[in-house]
Amino acid sequence: MEERFNFTVSRADTFPRVDERTDLKYHDKNVIHYDFSGVDDEVATGEIRCMCESLSQVGLQTEVRAGEDQSLLIFVRAAAELLSTEIYKSRVKDWLYSITKTQPQVDKKSKAQAAKFTFEAESLLCVYHLVTFSRENGGAGITPEFGRWENVKAVFPIHNEPANRQLLRHLSKRFFLTKDDLDQIRDLFGSKVAFYFAYMQTYLLFLSFPSVTGILAWAFLPKYSLIYAIITLVGCTMFLEYWKIVQADLSIRWDVKGVGSLKANRPKYRYEKVVVDSAGRPKHYYPKWKSFSRQSLQIPFFALCLVVLGVIITGVFALEILVSEAYQGPYQSYLEYVPTLILAAALPYINSLLEDAASWLAEFENHRTHDHHEMSVTQKLFVLSFIVNYLPILLTAFVYVPLGNQIVPWLGSQLPGTLGDKLDKHFFQKDPDRLRNEVIALTLTGQLSDMFEEMVVPYAMHRIRSWYHAYKSYRSHQASFNAVSPDDPMEKSFLRRVRRQASLPSYNVQDDISEMVIQFGYLALFSPVWPLVSVGFFINNWIELRSDFLKICIEHQRPHPTRTDGIGPWIHSLDALTWLGSISTAAIVHMFGTETGWSNTILGHTLGGVSWWSLPITIFVSEHIFLVLRAVVRFILQSVGSEEVRKERNERYVRRRKYMDELEAANRAKEMLDVGAVQRRKSVRMADSDIFWTKQVERGSSAETGVSLIKALGRDETLVLDKKDN
Amino acid sequence: MEERFNFTVSRADTFPRVDERTDLKYHDKNVIHYDFSGVDDEVATGEIRCMCESLSQVGLQTEVRAGEDQSLLIFVRAAAELLSTEIYKSRVKDWLYSITKTQPQVDKKSKAQAAKFTFEAESLLCVYHLVTFSRENGGAGITPEFGRWENVKAVFPIHNEPANRQLLRHLSKRFFLTKDDLDQIRDLFGSKVAFYFAYMQTYLLFLSFPSVTGILAWAFLPKYSLIYAIITLVGCTMFLEYWKIVQADLSIRWDVKGVGSLKANRPKYRYEKVVVDSAGRPKHYYPKWKSFSRQSLQIPFFALCLVVLGVIITGVFALEILVSEAYQGPYQSYLEYVPTLILAAALPYINSLLEDAASWLAEFENHRTHDHHEMSVTQKLFVLSFIVNYLPILLTAFVYVPLGNQIVPWLGSQLPGTLGDKLDKHFFQKDPDRLRNEVIALTLTGQLSDMFEEMVVPYAMHRIRSWYHAYKSYRSHQASFNAVSPDDPMEKSFLRRVRRQASLPSYNVQDDISEMVIQFGYLALFSPVWPLVSVGFFINNWIELRSDFLKICIEHQRPHPTRTDGIGPWIHSLDALTWLGSISTAAIVHMFGTETGWSNTILGHTLGGVSWWSLPITIFVSEHIFLVLRAVVRFILQSVGSEEVRKERNERYVRRRKYMDELEAANRAKEMLDVGAVQRRKSVRMADSDIFWTKQVERGSSAETGVSLIKALGRDETLVLDKKDN
Repeated sequence: MEERFNFTVSRADTFPRVDERTDLKYHDKNVIHYDFSGVDDEVATGEIRCMCESLSQVGLQTEVRAGEDQSLLIFVRAAAELLSTEIYKSRVKDWLYSITKTQPQVDKKSKAQAAKFTFEAESLLCVYHLVTFSRENGGAGITPEFGRWENVKAVFPIHNEPANRQLLRHLSKRFFLTKDDLDQIRDLFGSKVAFYFAYMQTYLLFLSFPSVTGILAWAFLPKYSLIYAIITLVGCTMFLEYWKIVQADLSIRWDVKGVGSLKANRPKYRYEKVVVDSAGRPKHYYPKWKSFSRQSLQIPFFALCLVVLGVIITGVFALEILVSEAYQGPYQSYLEYVPTLILAAALPYINSLLEDAASWLAEFENHRTHDHHEMSVTQKLFVLSFIVNYLPILLTAFVYVPLGNQIVPWLGSQLPGTLGDKLDKHFFQKDPDRLRNEVIALTLTGQLSDMFEEMVVPYAMHRIRSWYHAYKSYRSHQASFNAVSPDDPMEKSFLRRVRRQASLPSYNVQDDISEMVIQFGYLALFSPVWPLVSVGFFINNWIELRSDFLKICIEHQRPHPTRTDGIGPWIHSLDALTWLGSISTAAIVHMFGTETGWSNTILGHTLGGVSWWSLPITIFVSEHIFLVLRAVVRFILQSVGSEEVRKERNERYVRRRKYMDELEAANRAKEMLDVGAVQRRKSVRMADSDIFWTKQVERGSSAETGVSLIKALGRDETLVLDKKDN
Repeated sequence: MEERFNFTVSRADTFPRVDERTDLKYHDKNVIHYDFSGVDDEVATGEIRCMCESLSQVGLQTEVRAGEDQSLLIFVRAAAELLSTEIYKSRVKDWLYSITKTQPQVDKKSKAQAAKFTFEAESLLCVYHLVTFSRENGGAGITPEFGRWENVKAVFPIHNEPANRQLLRHLSKRFFLTKDDLDQIRDLFGSKVAFYFAYMQTYLLFLSFPSVTGILAWAFLPKYSLIYAIITLVGCTMFLEYWKIVQADLSIRWDVKGVGSLKANRPKYRYEKVVVDSAGRPKHYYPKWKSFSRQSLQIPFFALCLVVLGVIITGVFALEILVSEAYQGPYQSYLEYVPTLILAAALPYINSLLEDAASWLAEFENHRTHDHHEMSVTQKLFVLSFIVNYLPILLTAFVYVPLGNQIVPWLGSQLPGTLGDKLDKHFFQKDPDRLRNEVIALTLTGQLSDMFEEMVVPYAMHRIRSWYHAYKSYRSHQASFNAVSPDDPMEKSFLRRVRRQASLPSYNVQDDISEMVIQFGYLALFSPVWPLVSVGFFINNWIELRSDFLKICIEHQRPHPTRTDGIGPWIHSLDALTWLGSISTAAIVHMFGTETGWSNTILGHTLGGVSWWSLPITIFVSEHIFLVLRAVVRFILQSVGSEEVRKERNERYVRRRKYMDELEAANRAKEMLDVGAVQRRKSVRMADSDIFWTKQVERGSSAETGVSLIKALGRDETLVLDKKDN
């Protein structure tokens, strides 16, 4: 009867936790969440039997418990011996594929101890691979939500809550994260997530620079300052090249350099036939031309997106002009920005719709490995985000403000009645501040809505969900459920938490990286519009770095500790943004700037208007200055190099030197034995060609011949001849 | 007395050659050319003694013979045992630095046989390294023309004349070279030279494409055709990306991928101090900032070159205008091009002067490895060649022709007397054909003067030198020379040929590559000016491919078979030229083209003049189309990939699979033993956390628990309860 009142969350939390008391290990446990609400019992029975059989064939231990509603939680664990073997195998594989540089020891003892010198993420990944890899690759072949395992909702590791809490406490005390802090994140969540935090950290460090210069520019420089634009662009370039080194550095530190070559086939990859290649292994063949033609579908897709989004954004613009130019009522100055605010708030939702389309397209492109698939999705998302986030500003900067005095009257003449008249009569005032307000509105509301979406909504959902679950289990068949299979009192708290985790969404690090890349884009593309924007970004990211960690811990299933050697194709997106930034900022400064006007100065015009003819020249010059600058920065940073790369090289050198020394010693001994052989051979082979080499074979005879030749050929011939006479 | 009349070259050649008769081996012989004409006999005696001692300490055999004039030829050979050991060591080193992928066998027999399974270039390089490497690196430390070995003029291998002749005969029969042909060149001259021929071959193959389209364009398309420009640019881009794959392919085929990491210090490298790094090896330290600041001297150097060359070229131009516009006498139409022809003929000499300056600057930059030094020289040479070769055409295209009607009258007003009057009066006629004639003159005379310089001059020099040498030895102390140290009659012919080789210049493959890159530049930058230019290039290169081989064989010392993994930094030069080509051809078509005039069409002008304002837009569009195109080509070609890369991957896979299989077998045996261990452990450790995992430990019990839970939680609760009642 006590169970009845247990649906209040707060009360359960006051109980001491089983796992903390008994030091439960998290490194080898994964949970399979099996939902049989969609199938009848016969099918479910067959599937669960098959699953348990597959798992135990691989050597995994299983424990089945009841989940929420009509679902089961299958706890999977690898025994210490199996785990050691698997970790050892994976390390050997890493070594063979030259991802790690030190050869694993082959003796039995070090094999058995492999699991002891490991971190949580490595073990978890091994177990995850045992569960999900296909049978040919030595796994149980359980692929969530695919094929015969349609009803497996997820395979996920259990959150190590004590470690999470401890690390969160530790991170909240630090201003900037060190490499050791990043190591800890890597140990807990794997390198893919850790690389995101490393990027955030480096980016945050860099942001302090445009923040300071931004405040100075805001205080002392004119609006749309050329100097600030140049400084920011230089900063962005240097940051990017520096990050590439940091990334390479960390990939060596974390032993994941080149890990992409190790990846297995995606289960959803469809091949046309199996061909056996020259190495004798079966290869899943899918024609290259089909891949290319499917990938080329991206172009119409992006064109369509551009048109659809362009129409929506232009519509919002027209609405806005109506309000600002024709509406003369109260709050006009506030209402003017309402459409933009609506757009900014609506953007995330439009975005997510298009993301689904992009995912579908990426699936259709049929990539072999998960990495390539993810890269494809990521590239699409980037282009979409680009359009959604930057198109409004680009339209404002390059169409609305400079051409508004031609467009607005035309718009007025198209509108019926009084509205049109008003617009027509109302002389259009060009407003360079409009661009500034647009950027402020979009970036600030964007940041705020993101934060709301990421922090407030999930937290509210989390509370509501907790309460709802507790309520539901109380109301429904909880009683009978308990009668059928009551939770062990010792496990009660543990199971409750795992059931909650099973109901959480999985964590996708790409979303968070995407957000940061788009933010970087605002800085790179529009920095001179409003120099203070980077201050806002700095504050936002300082919070975000911590809140993202919290978010992973409490609002998502624990991510699989996937290994990657960096943030992947986002590097190219960042590169592209900086490049575009050199064009965009140049154009903005050229068109809106007050301090510059080289074309006006040369031609003697002082109209103050935009000189359109010189705009392409400004862009051309700026872009090429950027490209040269980037080449120089790249050259310098690459010659300075990274510490880890040097360290790795030194270690490799030591290892090789040792090998070479051993070889040398062996050779020296051998050479001693071979001294006589030359002499013997001489007498055996007396071919003409060898005679040439036998004339001065005694030690020192060559030198003496040389000396006598020098004397003979020397300048004082007479002397030589004299000597001969003597 | 017979010796007296032996200075006629032809007669000596009719004698049967010693080496052919007796099958002399060339694979292990280097010759040190020691010239003591500059020092007195005491010093020379000391040096020759020291040299022979150093060489024999390393284990090399030496034979000293008299050279021409006051010089000695020290023949150096490695005995079979030493050579085997050295080749084996170098292979082990390659394997350790992961340049080759197959581990050399460690047993004694295969070590001793290493030299048998090798090609000539590999052995030669080993001997060369033994002679020139520093003592710390296991060599004799003989560095020609440097330090204490100032008087050593050269260390060079002896030409394998039978092999040369045979290969030349073989190549002259082939229209296009295959990979096997390139292998043969590699075996003889090493991969550095072979890569040049591979590039030539690929480039020649590519040239057939613009040759055909060029003839078609010349016949059917208007002058300065946009279509031809686009086709050529696409072709250049595809060629370049294809070559990168071919290069990677060959570097794997020839086991030289990443060979740059193996290179030793240049002897001329000056370091500030020796620091001991974390690997315990002494490192030659030279501050990074000094390197950078010294390298930044390039910028003023190039600026100076640009100014000097610009002034010279502009001067020639002014002279030409005087002739063409003010001179009205006979042969005016021919005389007009005389200054350009003089410029074209003088360019190679100006070039070589500036090359010396560039070499000095590269030396001053103090690069550690020979590779980096060469890269630095190469980059400088490229910029110089760029200015010298293309500046005249660029000035013609973008200054003289479009702005001539403003410049020429101004020039006239500056000139005194009648000439100026004539120029002033004479209305300037813009002549778009001028550009065409300029390109024809520069490329054709350039090719012809190159060919003359490379083929005719050296051949004449060769004959003259032969005659002179024979004559001199006849006239001077040949008699006494023969009295002091007469040539063995068996060696006479051989020694004569080696003496001749010692007098030849060494071969620098960079010069030949440079010529080809500059030629490619004409095509990339100015293709629409005269479409037939590529036909000329095709014919020239078809000859050059053979004549270059002949040139190496008879006009140069045999090159050291240096290993590189491609044509090095020239790739970047080619990339840059293609990029600039997208700008240059767009500008040329925009300014001179008749078929296009998008800006005129849009604005409704039909002036026919150059619309300057739209030029930057044309360039911008063209450049970015090129960049996108390049990205697409790169993406496609990289996904298609190279055959050798796939082959290498397959081989690696087989090797690894084998290793993994052995491991698997060992593990399986081990697992059998460990089955019982789990059970035992269970009974030992009965912590709370483990209890969770002991409940369903029997095989199948998890599945059964799952099944019963499914039934319990299933939709028809009543049924379950009913069953329970039963």
